[in-house]
Amino acid sequence: MTARFRLVISYLGSRFHGWQVQENACSVQGEIEARLKGIFNDETIGIIGSGRTDAGVHAAGQVAHVDLPNSIPSAGLIKALNGRLPQDIRVLSADRTSPDFHARFDAKAKTYCYRIRWIPSRPAPPWKFQRTAFLPKPTNIKAMIDALVALEGEHDFASFTVRDPNRTGRTRRQLFSTRARLTKTGLHLVFRGSGFLRYQVRRMVGALLEIGNGKHDAQWLDGLLSGPQPGAAVYSAPPRGLCLEKVEYAPERTMVDSSTDFGAVKS
Amino acid sequence: MTARFRLVISYLGSRFHGWQVQENACSVQGEIEARLKGIFNDETIGIIGSGRTDAGVHAAGQVAHVDLPNSIPSAGLIKALNGRLPQDIRVLSADRTSPDFHARFDAKAKTYCYRIRWIPSRPAPPWKFQRTAFLPKPTNIKAMIDALVALEGEHDFASFTVRDPNRTGRTRRQLFSTRARLTKTGLHLVFRGSGFLRYQVRRMVGALLEIGNGKHDAQWLDGLLSGPQPGAAVYSAPPRGLCLEKVEYAPERTMVDSSTDFGAVKS
Repeated sequence: MTARFRLVISYLGSRFHGWQVQENACSVQGEIEARLKGIFNDETIGIIGSGRTDAGVHAAGQVAHVDLPNSIPSAGLIKALNGRLPQDIRVLSADRTSPDFHARFDAKAKTYCYRIRWIPSRPAPPWKFQRTAFLPKPTNIKAMIDALVALEGEHDFASFTVRDPNRTGRTRRQLFSTRARLTKTGLHLVFRGSGFLRYQVRRMVGALLEIGNGKHDAQWLDGLLSGPQPGAAVYSAPPRGLCLEKVEYAPERTMVDSSTDFGAVKS
Repeated sequence: MTARFRLVISYLGSRFHGWQVQENACSVQGEIEARLKGIFNDETIGIIGSGRTDAGVHAAGQVAHVDLPNSIPSAGLIKALNGRLPQDIRVLSADRTSPDFHARFDAKAKTYCYRIRWIPSRPAPPWKFQRTAFLPKPTNIKAMIDALVALEGEHDFASFTVRDPNRTGRTRRQLFSTRARLTKTGLHLVFRGSGFLRYQVRRMVGALLEIGNGKHDAQWLDGLLSGPQPGAAVYSAPPRGLCLEKVEYAPERTMVDSSTDFGAVKS
């Protein structure tokens, strides 16, 4: 008997070639699958994430599903995985879920945060440095933040992705909301949407930075949103600033048991 | 012409055999000295820290001094070092200081924080996991916190260190203040004192945990403080939870110029 588990996973992406398994490259999915195959002595185990994150991109709350022998307790699964995984990948929770729960198809919203520290500013300690992009401070931050708001809503975001011959599909997405948080030394940009195309967040951030620098203006951005021009927004902000914060599912997709109640589990 | 520089350095200690240069082991001091020797093509350069941190212990604000050619601008020095250092060591500032400033002898106070997450509790993302000790939750947290306060003041802390045949010296220190911060999942313990003996903070934390577990009581701790018993407090809390937060100096020891004003430096 197998059960479907829903995992919430956090990782520092610096060392990985992204989430997705690739030949001859270290991936987060590959690391977790290898540990699961070892734990259950079953080479067929595969996990499915809510979506890819690119090389160098981090996650605070990536979600994945996997079918495993029903007998394993959630707390035991977490312990076994975290004991074997490298320290830059942590499984935060593992809950039994509905057998038809699908981490990718059922995702209703994703939230990304892009963390920028302006150059010049005081360097950051390693634990912040790892997840922060260091970028020259644009002259017009206000224009950036105005443009951020203009991105909200439903648009064809084809201008902010690459044509991938292996992946055809619609490029219309909903950006539910955005948020800009000015810090002492930088800027955090938060994007919550129905889903994001490949490179979309980094290219949106890149476009905002170019608007802040005066290379482009608000009208240029409006043009890209109203009439998609593939390849128009080409500057991708560096991956190290990007973090997948959260993946949301419809309420009926929440866990069907609560055996990961740490408060009640004996250590 | 040389000038004395005061560096503020942050590091993740996980990978290092501590601050101090050791033969055949990777140390923070060794990494920085090697980069300085390379930058200035001078094998005689040596830096002196405010004190050792042990293997696996982190720093948010270690302070060190070093004599370097006067011609280098502070911002250039920081950039050159951070460009060459591994990402788990970051130089946060570098300021010209008085030629008789001594990072160790002039230190007036040091602050350490010990970060605990209780087992069982939700695992932490990698960027917190790296600097957190995972420990079973003691039954009596209140007794721990009461005992923490009892440590404050001037005492002979010989019970909380090891006799090092190479280092003789007084074991009397002042613990100016302590602070306990309960978090959702754990406890942070902060110690500010005139200086700390080897293993002192980790053994004080270890003693507090044993009091919380009922293995020892407040009277036992009072006994160790009033009549030092070397080797009595032997349980050292693991290094990964410990971080040297700050080193303080007398006001006249502050920088003599302000060329590290990042706000004014062109990137």
